[in-house]
Amino acid sequence: MRPKPHINRHYDGLLEELRRRVLEMGGFVEKQIADAIHALVERDSKEAELVIERDHIVNRMDVEIDEMCLNLLALHQPAARDLRFITTAMKINADLERAGDMAENICERAMELGQEPQLKPYVDLPRMARMAQEMLRDSLNSFVREDVELALKVCRDDDAVDALLEQIFRELISYMVEDPASISRAMRIIFVSKYLERVSDHATNIAEMVVFMVKGKSIRHLGEPPQEL
Amino acid sequence: MRPKPHINRHYDGLLEELRRRVLEMGGFVEKQIADAIHALVERDSKEAELVIERDHIVNRMDVEIDEMCLNLLALHQPAARDLRFITTAMKINADLERAGDMAENICERAMELGQEPQLKPYVDLPRMARMAQEMLRDSLNSFVREDVELALKVCRDDDAVDALLEQIFRELISYMVEDPASISRAMRIIFVSKYLERVSDHATNIAEMVVFMVKGKSIRHLGEPPQEL
Repeated sequence: MRPKPHINRHYDGLLEELRRRVLEMGGFVEKQIADAIHALVERDSKEAELVIERDHIVNRMDVEIDEMCLNLLALHQPAARDLRFITTAMKINADLERAGDMAENICERAMELGQEPQLKPYVDLPRMARMAQEMLRDSLNSFVREDVELALKVCRDDDAVDALLEQIFRELISYMVEDPASISRAMRIIFVSKYLERVSDHATNIAEMVVFMVKGKSIRHLGEPPQEL
Repeated sequence: MRPKPHINRHYDGLLEELRRRVLEMGGFVEKQIADAIHALVERDSKEAELVIERDHIVNRMDVEIDEMCLNLLALHQPAARDLRFITTAMKINADLERAGDMAENICERAMELGQEPQLKPYVDLPRMARMAQEMLRDSLNSFVREDVELALKVCRDDDAVDALLEQIFRELISYMVEDPASISRAMRIIFVSKYLERVSDHATNIAEMVVFMVKGKSIRHLGEPPQEL
């Protein structure tokens, strides 16, 4: 027989705390990405190093949230809806940690690029970064508010990021063709754009998990994200 | 009060079934990656299309394993050790599904490359693919056997994949510098190598989760993987 879940103030407080922590980690990761792009644009290797250093904070948050979820599952035997919320938090946590790793990767490329003359002013990359950050923020808000509409918006926004990636890619290829001396720098910039694409992919993964959590059905594998469910 | 976990044949059978399914999905994903690389090497766009088509099978496995885990958590209130096993399976499942997506990405690049003259014979990419596949297999075996030694081996193998990636990268840059007409093809091949790197990253993630599951401590964020724990 299934016992009644502990519906008490302590348990509700822990769920609230879990929500708060996931948002906090998301905010931190978002800031890491913004700072990484800032370090790239400003050619500031000191800032790049600081971002890399701060990655351990993301990692600590990851471990703590994971433990918190395990404890909630072990001690409070949550029922269907909360169970899904907590297991989704665990998976979101993994996505956030890896999105944080992208900030680190961007900084590594930024430091390499900082040692060579600048290839071109950065216009599209900061735009792409802002889009990816917004998607991350929206995906986490959709999670804590259980807002399917917002989650579906994130899935649609992914197309805009992909289009921008395609544009950056084409522009850099033309640089490479015109001047082979630019190839290794152009490659590094292309990698940065791929890291940002992966951030937006993580946000999309999170959004898809939110739809699954709320609706109990998976949109992950339908091809185009539906306009509504 | 925490009730005793249902230790009965039905429950044990379900855990065994979960193990079997995770391995089965891993085997399928491994095959998808092997077939994708085969399609690339043989310039066989028909095979590439088949791999892309079969991705829906990976996706179905993903959804089914996820549901199985949720049911196990909801109905059987597993205690500490099983709880960790089941939540780890859920996360591994997500990694496997995304490793499967890499096979699809490889096929897309293979189909593009098939429309242009071959740039060079593929030697390192199939080697890299075999390494990534082996890491995936080892990581899943470490999970079902709860084998920390094997998991640590996977973490160390990741360095060999990174070294090979670096070598592929350098070679292709030299192609691009010598002949700008090769740039877009070389870029596509570099992307394939990055997809394979991501497969090995997923395997490493899985291995790190296994260490955490068995030892209860995270090695994810220690920098170099330790030789032993």
